[in-house]
Parts: sequence; structure tokens; C-alpha cells
Amino acid sequence: MTRTTVESATRTVIIGFDAPFCVIGERINPTGRKKLAAELEAGDFSTVERDALEQVACGAMVLDVNAGVVYNSNPNPNETEPPLMGRMIELVQGLVDVPLCIDSSVPGALETGLQLATGRPLLNSVTGEEERLEAILPLVKKYNVPVVAISNDDTGISEDPDVRFAVAKKIVQRAADFGIPAHDIVVDPLVMPVGAMASAGQQVFTLVRRLREELGVNTTCGASNISFGLPHRHGVNAAFLPMAIGAGMTSAIMNPLRAAEMEAVRAANLLMNHDPNGAAWIGFSRVLDAVNEGASFAEASQAAATAGAGRGARRRRRA
Amino acid sequence: MTRTTVESATRTVIIGFDAPFCVIGERINPTGRKKLAAELEAGDFSTVERDALEQVACGAMVLDVNAGVVYNSNPNPNETEPPLMGRMIELVQGLVDVPLCIDSSVPGALETGLQLATGRPLLNSVTGEEERLEAILPLVKKYNVPVVAISNDDTGISEDPDVRFAVAKKIVQRAADFGIPAHDIVVDPLVMPVGAMASAGQQVFTLVRRLREELGVNTTCGASNISFGLPHRHGVNAAFLPMAIGAGMTSAIMNPLRAAEMEAVRAANLLMNHDPNGAAWIGFSRVLDAVNEGASFAEASQAAATAGAGRGARRRRRA
Repeated sequence: MTRTTVESATRTVIIGFDAPFCVIGERINPTGRKKLAAELEAGDFSTVERDALEQVACGAMVLDVNAGVVYNSNPNPNETEPPLMGRMIELVQGLVDVPLCIDSSVPGALETGLQLATGRPLLNSVTGEEERLEAILPLVKKYNVPVVAISNDDTGISEDPDVRFAVAKKIVQRAADFGIPAHDIVVDPLVMPVGAMASAGQQVFTLVRRLREELGVNTTCGASNISFGLPHRHGVNAAFLPMAIGAGMTSAIMNPLRAAEMEAVRAANLLMNHDPNGAAWIGFSRVLDAVNEGASFAEASQAAATAGAGRGARRRRRA
Repeated sequence: MTRTTVESATRTVIIGFDAPFCVIGERINPTGRKKLAAELEAGDFSTVERDALEQVACGAMVLDVNAGVVYNSNPNPNETEPPLMGRMIELVQGLVDVPLCIDSSVPGALETGLQLATGRPLLNSVTGEEERLEAILPLVKKYNVPVVAISNDDTGISEDPDVRFAVAKKIVQRAADFGIPAHDIVVDPLVMPVGAMASAGQQVFTLVRRLREELGVNTTCGASNISFGLPHRHGVNAAFLPMAIGAGMTSAIMNPLRAAEMEAVRAANLLMNHDPNGAAWIGFSRVLDAVNEGASFAEASQAAATAGAGRGARRRRRA
């Protein structure tokens, strides 16, 4: 049973074959969010704060933190991104108690994040590119953290799933040379849009099964890629996630504010026997009731989280 | 590649590993529908007519027809069910052109259905019970039709999936003795409620994979059983269906009037590469648009079906 341990100062999350699917919240990321990028350059962290609180209320178990802003005042992210990453990590872990996923293409930003994050964060990411392997694996070893391994290399992203498997295998082997165990590597086999490549879904299901059976690694993906360009893409995502989970995928970097996707994940947990007595599903069904009565998913989730905390507090007072 | 051929007078449906998931509409069944049972005893077939048209518009590819009414005027279904089955079969195949699934526990009703159904209907069902094997397999052979094989036997329904697999294997072997090929047997491995048995989902996924790989048979199930007793059961069904399809299930007896379940099936077809160019998904997304604007799923589906027929007619006139 492969288990990847990710920790904050106070909370442990297991990514594993025998654990509920790990939802890694993707929202704290200025890529493609111009307004957020401008706010971050201006030192305004209000959106980051809201994204952190809402995502955790909606069920994110880990939060991805990406500081990839190209400043108008300084176009060199090697200078600007590390301090911004540090500030965002400290802000987010002061607000919520879930573990973090430190996400950057800038090695200096990853190291700043590693220095400041409490517990055992997930590092995002290494690839099969030589330069990246040499830059990132020493950090993974030095800080003893798990790492996301994306299955592209110096030749780019292959459309051939056998090549993507081979890249993942190479990363696992190179990591072993550094003394990093396979259970600390979470492979992203790369999800292509099914609208552009009709075999994209089947490729992922087959790859996830092979990665699990042959390499013994946990897996993750950017789940929403599968539906890129399609109408009603949340319906596609909401079928893709249970199918990927059934094939053995153990985490995804996704938007936990989307009710359809979170409903699919929670139902899949129940069907995988990863929801003892259906308690999580039954709790979630109350959130869906509130959504049916007109609340937004984030509002309903936050209300349920607060009520849950309140009930816990009352129980504690009685004890 | 296992393929089960089911036919009406004019239409062929393939249940198969390389075909879109076969939705068998379950609605024409008085079991648990007191109002429909009373109507049928009184000779009122208006609900059957509406159920036939709506289910096909919503995407049913085969219609199950069950005449299991216990008449107040005559409690012997061996006398009352065969003529009622005959009348319902003739009515339904006069209204819609999809193949039928003749569903009864009364062998005489099955034979009447077989005599009157055009094409190559699916027979529902044989079990592993000795009496049932002896009564049904000769009909399957005589009329050269495919049959649903339910994996219970004289000892009842086992909670042990290995026993249910063994029962299915026995039925396939007994059918072979009659000269009935495995590709004409569609096994129902029996879906238990996950709310009562936490391993129910995983049992089905494992069984479907074994039935496919070891016996080479197509599979079906009463899909909604999985969510019996749970809140928001359509959310559970809508995750179960893609997971079962990913595991290799090729059909289900289900309610095609439920938008959530049909959306899940159509998205899963796309993700299994069984929807060339996404044409079915894109067409279905227009139905979802209409539902979002306030139409019922049945209304929106019927409107889309009519518009599609209209477009076809216009194209034909132009040619």
C-alpha cells in the first residue's frame, strides 16, 4: 500500500491507495488570472485569503500555492517570485491548517517555500527534463518532502502514453539515486483534452493503472484539462474523476469550489469504500440540500463547516 | 471483442466492449408502481405509451417491458401475464423502433413475448437456479436470442463476489451445453446497496472486470440499487455508472429520464472513446442548455429529438 504523507503544522494528509481521494485546491495561482496577478504585484492578498478559506471549506485537503506573477515593474521572476512565494506561504498557513503544495517553475521560489512552510509540504514539481531533475531532486532530498513528477522531458510532452510512462519511470529511478523513495513521488501522467485527442481518457486510465501496479506510485493530474474546449465541461470532469479514481488515481489538482466535481469525488470515495459508514457523503448531502435551496456551493460549504465546528465545540464543552 | 446483437424490426443495437454503453430503459414495469398496475389491469396503456416515447427520446437504446401485475380479479400471473405481455410488446414496438427486453419471472410470458417481438429481443432473465435454467435456456436456444443472466442460484444471492462469479460461470457453461454462445449472455453480477454493504461498489468493479476478462461476457445491472437508502442518490448513481463503465460494464437497466445519470453515461462514452468527434456529447449539451433554461429533461430531450428528425428530413429533401 503506497502512502504519501503530506503535513501542515497540525494536520496529516495521506495520499494513498487505501485513502480518500486527495483534493488539492488549485485556486491560489495567478496564471490566467490577471486580476489576481495585479493584486499580488500591488501587495493585495485579499483574494488569496478568500481562496484559501473557501477552498478548505469546500473540501480541499491540500492547497496549491503558486506565485507565478511576472511583475510589470520587474520582469525577472527569479528575483520577484521567491519573496512573493514566501509571503503567500506564510499568509495561507496562518489562515488554514491544511498542508500546502508549493508550486513554481522557479527553483528559488520552491526553496523559499520549503524554508517557510511548516510540516511536510508537497513540492510541485519535477519533470523528466535534465536541468529540472538536477535542480529539484536535491531540494526534495534536503527537505525530505514528497514531490509531483510530471511526465514530460526535454523532448516535450509525448502523445504516446508509453513514452509518458517511460519518463515517469526515469524520474522514479533518478529519485532513487538520490535516496528518495517511490512513495514520495506523485506522478502526473499528463491529461490531454479529450476534445482534441479522442483516446485521452483511456490513456489516463491505462497509465494510472500501470503507474500504480508497475511503479507503485501515487498519481495526480490537472483534472479539468480533460474537458478543455468542450461544452458543459463540468459534466465531463464529473465523469472523468470517478473513472480516474476507479482506475487508481489518488489525487488531483482541481477547483474545489465546483459542486459537480466535488460531488463526483465524494461519491467515488463512498463507492471505493473510503468513506466509513457514508458519514462524509451524508454530511455533504446537507450542503447539496442548501445549494438546492439557493445557496452558493461555497456559502453552503462554509456554513456546514462552521456548524460542524460549532457542534464539535458544544460536544467538547459537554465533555 | 464480445458483441451482443439486439434488434428490433428496423434497428440494431450492439452491446459490446467497443460500443457506447447500452442504456436499457426500466420504466415500463408495474413493480412498485401501483398506479400503473391498476391502469394495466383496467386496460389503460396510456402510461406505457408515454414511458416508451419519453425513454427513447431521453436516450434509451433498448426498452425493458415487464408485465408483472398481479390482477385483483385473478391472482394467477401464469394466466394473466402472458396475454398482458403480448399486448404490451405489440403496443411498444408499434410506437418506437428500439429493440425490446422481455422481462418476466413467468416463462409463459417470456415465450409470448418472444413470439410477438420482431427482430432479436433481449430476454430477461435466467438465473443459476436449476428450475430456471431448465425453463429458460431452451427458449433462448429456440428463439436464438441473447439473455440476461443474474448471478443468484438456489441458495439465494451470495454476499461473496467469488460465489456470484461462480454462479455466472455455471450459467455460461450450462448455456454452452445448449449451444448458446457466451456473447449472447449478458451477466448481471448483482449490485448491492453501498449504504448497507460498504464494499458493494468495489465488488461490482472487480466482478465486471473478471466477467469480461475470464468469461468474455457483456454485463448489465440494475444501476440504481447501488444508492438505495442514501440521500442524493442520483449523485451516487452518476459516479457509479462511469466507474462501472471504466471497469468494463457494457449496459445497465436504468431510468433514462434522470438527467444526472444520462449525463454521466454520455460523458463516460466520450471518455471511453465511444463517441466519435464528441458528436453525441455536443448534441446532449444542447439538451442540458434547455434544462438550464427551465425545461424538464424529458421535454428538452423530446424537442431535441424532433429537431434532429426535422433536420434529417430537410437534408433528405435537399438531396
